[in-house]
Amino acid sequence: MILLNKKKFLNIVVDFSFQMRPEANIMYFKLNRKFVMRLSRYFLPLMKETPADAQIISHRLMHRAGLIHKTSAGIYSWLPLGLRVLENIERIVREEQDRIGNHYIKMSTIQPADLWIESGRYDAYGKEMLRIKDRHDRDFLYGPTNEEQVTDIVRTHLKSYKDLPLNLYQIQWKFRDEIRPRFGVMRGREFLMKDGYSFDVDFESAKKTYQSIFQSYLRTFRRLGLTAIPVQADSGAIGGNMSHEFQILAETGESTVYYDKRYEELANSANIDFDELSSLYAVESEKHDPATCPIPEDQLLVKKGIEVGHIFYFGTKYSEVMGLKVTGSDGKPFHPEMGSYGIGVSRLVGAIIEASHDDKGIVWPEAVAPFKVMIIDLVNSDDATMSMGCQLHKALISMGIDVLYDDRNERPGVKFATADLIGIPYHVIVGKRSTETGLVELKHRKTGQVQEMTLDHIIEKFNKDKS
Amino acid sequence: MILLNKKKFLNIVVDFSFQMRPEANIMYFKLNRKFVMRLSRYFLPLMKETPADAQIISHRLMHRAGLIHKTSAGIYSWLPLGLRVLENIERIVREEQDRIGNHYIKMSTIQPADLWIESGRYDAYGKEMLRIKDRHDRDFLYGPTNEEQVTDIVRTHLKSYKDLPLNLYQIQWKFRDEIRPRFGVMRGREFLMKDGYSFDVDFESAKKTYQSIFQSYLRTFRRLGLTAIPVQADSGAIGGNMSHEFQILAETGESTVYYDKRYEELANSANIDFDELSSLYAVESEKHDPATCPIPEDQLLVKKGIEVGHIFYFGTKYSEVMGLKVTGSDGKPFHPEMGSYGIGVSRLVGAIIEASHDDKGIVWPEAVAPFKVMIIDLVNSDDATMSMGCQLHKALISMGIDVLYDDRNERPGVKFATADLIGIPYHVIVGKRSTETGLVELKHRKTGQVQEMTLDHIIEKFNKDKS
Repeated sequence: MILLNKKKFLNIVVDFSFQMRPEANIMYFKLNRKFVMRLSRYFLPLMKETPADAQIISHRLMHRAGLIHKTSAGIYSWLPLGLRVLENIERIVREEQDRIGNHYIKMSTIQPADLWIESGRYDAYGKEMLRIKDRHDRDFLYGPTNEEQVTDIVRTHLKSYKDLPLNLYQIQWKFRDEIRPRFGVMRGREFLMKDGYSFDVDFESAKKTYQSIFQSYLRTFRRLGLTAIPVQADSGAIGGNMSHEFQILAETGESTVYYDKRYEELANSANIDFDELSSLYAVESEKHDPATCPIPEDQLLVKKGIEVGHIFYFGTKYSEVMGLKVTGSDGKPFHPEMGSYGIGVSRLVGAIIEASHDDKGIVWPEAVAPFKVMIIDLVNSDDATMSMGCQLHKALISMGIDVLYDDRNERPGVKFATADLIGIPYHVIVGKRSTETGLVELKHRKTGQVQEMTLDHIIEKFNKDKS
Repeated sequence: MILLNKKKFLNIVVDFSFQMRPEANIMYFKLNRKFVMRLSRYFLPLMKETPADAQIISHRLMHRAGLIHKTSAGIYSWLPLGLRVLENIERIVREEQDRIGNHYIKMSTIQPADLWIESGRYDAYGKEMLRIKDRHDRDFLYGPTNEEQVTDIVRTHLKSYKDLPLNLYQIQWKFRDEIRPRFGVMRGREFLMKDGYSFDVDFESAKKTYQSIFQSYLRTFRRLGLTAIPVQADSGAIGGNMSHEFQILAETGESTVYYDKRYEELANSANIDFDELSSLYAVESEKHDPATCPIPEDQLLVKKGIEVGHIFYFGTKYSEVMGLKVTGSDGKPFHPEMGSYGIGVSRLVGAIIEASHDDKGIVWPEAVAPFKVMIIDLVNSDDATMSMGCQLHKALISMGIDVLYDDRNERPGVKFATADLIGIPYHVIVGKRSTETGLVELKHRKTGQVQEMTLDHIIEKFNKDKS
């Protein structure tokens, strides 16, 4: 079924308040708050050479594709294309946090040292903490994590067990002063992280919270187009600490993960069963011993992984030491049980590239791609091809699809190479012949598959994808 | 015309995948990524007492309404309700930046001192700059502004006059180590700011850019529900520096602004004429001298204002000293002309409250309100009223309207006071009698006007508002 037939399509084109503003940076029209970007005016500084310190493929590709600018060792600024990916990841992470009822807050990046002295971690944290003195010579730090700060918020405002369970999360910049920052945004010093903190009345409730986050993380990574393996990070006895690291599979990963092959099937089922999944064997190489491995070798998969998430139950550790107490149902005060839950949002940009690229460049999963469609106008000086290209991008934008229009005065080969390098999932190629035949080429970046189609069929295809 | 008639409304209710999860923090259903919040499970720590340092009304109300948590002097964390307002402002600021073709980037908060030594501002900036040494004893700082950093990005990546004009902007946390932080988020140390930077080939082009930002700022503040007066900040000769501060009118403002009363009419016209508007008399009190004032007294208005924006043209100051050069159309390298443009995003939350409150609390302009509608269920234990309340909030959410449902076990007076304090624009009051008569009360927070209406009429009203 063609949802948007020719008649309707033409009506939409007529209805649009299309604007061509040569003096501005963008040829755009606005519909549903979406803008069409014209590549000749877009700030996309592609690089042929990559910095000497870019050792891994994601780091090189992020520079070559104009996603980031290096400000200092381990400190990056995000350029428009990279920021679109970062924000897509952020949006998906937030949606999945909101879905399970967590509350979105934003804590300051700068924290007073007092809070960390109270928790006992100020000295323990070592040189990775960026320590700061303000103009009055008082001690502050750039938050590497926020257990202390969130405990301070909750102890100030929470009074009763009736306000529990409570789960506060944020997506905020953090700083860890790595001795040797490397791998670009994968191990940077300033990085964007989602960190969440839970407060529960007792262990049973805390365990339910932990399980709900565990399932939510798997959903989050799946939506990002990734396969994530939750690896037990601490083998404490039941009733003690619970902790899992989430490793996404990438051939170039730093870690090696040994895991039960039944895992992938279970993780992709509609309802993730925590008990079933977390009981499966999954460990990092240093914990794997063939002699004691509980599952037969033919059931074992060995793959490379990148850590992108970490969840951790730590009971009353911070609520006790920082004096967080609320009144229980029996009228007596008690220390809530806590856990913390992190996802490396900026790290994920690099990790996704490690998991999804080829020799031509990045292959973005659709959910995080900076644009879904790139229209490549091969003629560019011809009114007829531009008119076709414009018609198409108006129709796609009206469907809420992000489009980048390559109107640069470049050879076809350069345009194809750019589209491949920056990893846009679909390329629509409009050439001289298109204006005669009415056909354009639709190329799928991931498979390389090319189909000749009419504009109507392309619109039909993307309409189907949406529904 | 009732866009959503009874039949359709009931269909929507049936279609919804409504979920009641007592174990989660939110009774919600999802449609268009919108969630309905249940106040009994929302993290809204209302305060009866306000901190001793809260001298001005916005600071007191932000604490009382549970918008922020004070982490340290001049350093605040944003709680859920406050963060919703902050993000609404951020969204509007971004939309207006995107509309004029500016490119969205995100620079790091931490900058190397080297860049500021290069520009000559490292020593000049004084104690307001938060200076930091990393573990290798290298000098860094928490960016108070970003002229140096953006110039570094542009000199690295821009080669030709063909890439101009270019305008890069970001919304990012900044730090200024104020000697006496006060007025809550209005003069905090860590704050969220939109800062933009323009690069042009020559003065004529830079002037056009400046004018376009000037007009864009007026549109932005108007959309935020504010009246902003652009006050000339520097009276340099034509061809020299151009600079305007944007003062929003608030009875409790710090500044006193003297301005031509024709201003408000011109600023609210559909097409803002820069030349006409910027030629009108508007100065701060220290520059106003009745003896030399060029306009007659009966044409002069005197009002209190709060500075929320500042735009500044500074020519080749940074491009020269930092060696930013691009090739001109004549093949010769030249230094681009620059300007910078700031809006105090977190400051605006306080400023809007100063401009819009009464003795009962905050009166949010609709565009920035954390929720547009608050449903007040006076019975709460009664299935019939809850069913009416739920029906209504499902319908409103399906229209993309944010709703907070007060299901707390509190007296009506407490519920009314909360709704007034936190400033939600519309309150819908569902009482015992509503289930018999089919009528609920719709109260407008700003005017206090109350109307009895059916649910259908409320839905009709909000549908009309949208179109």
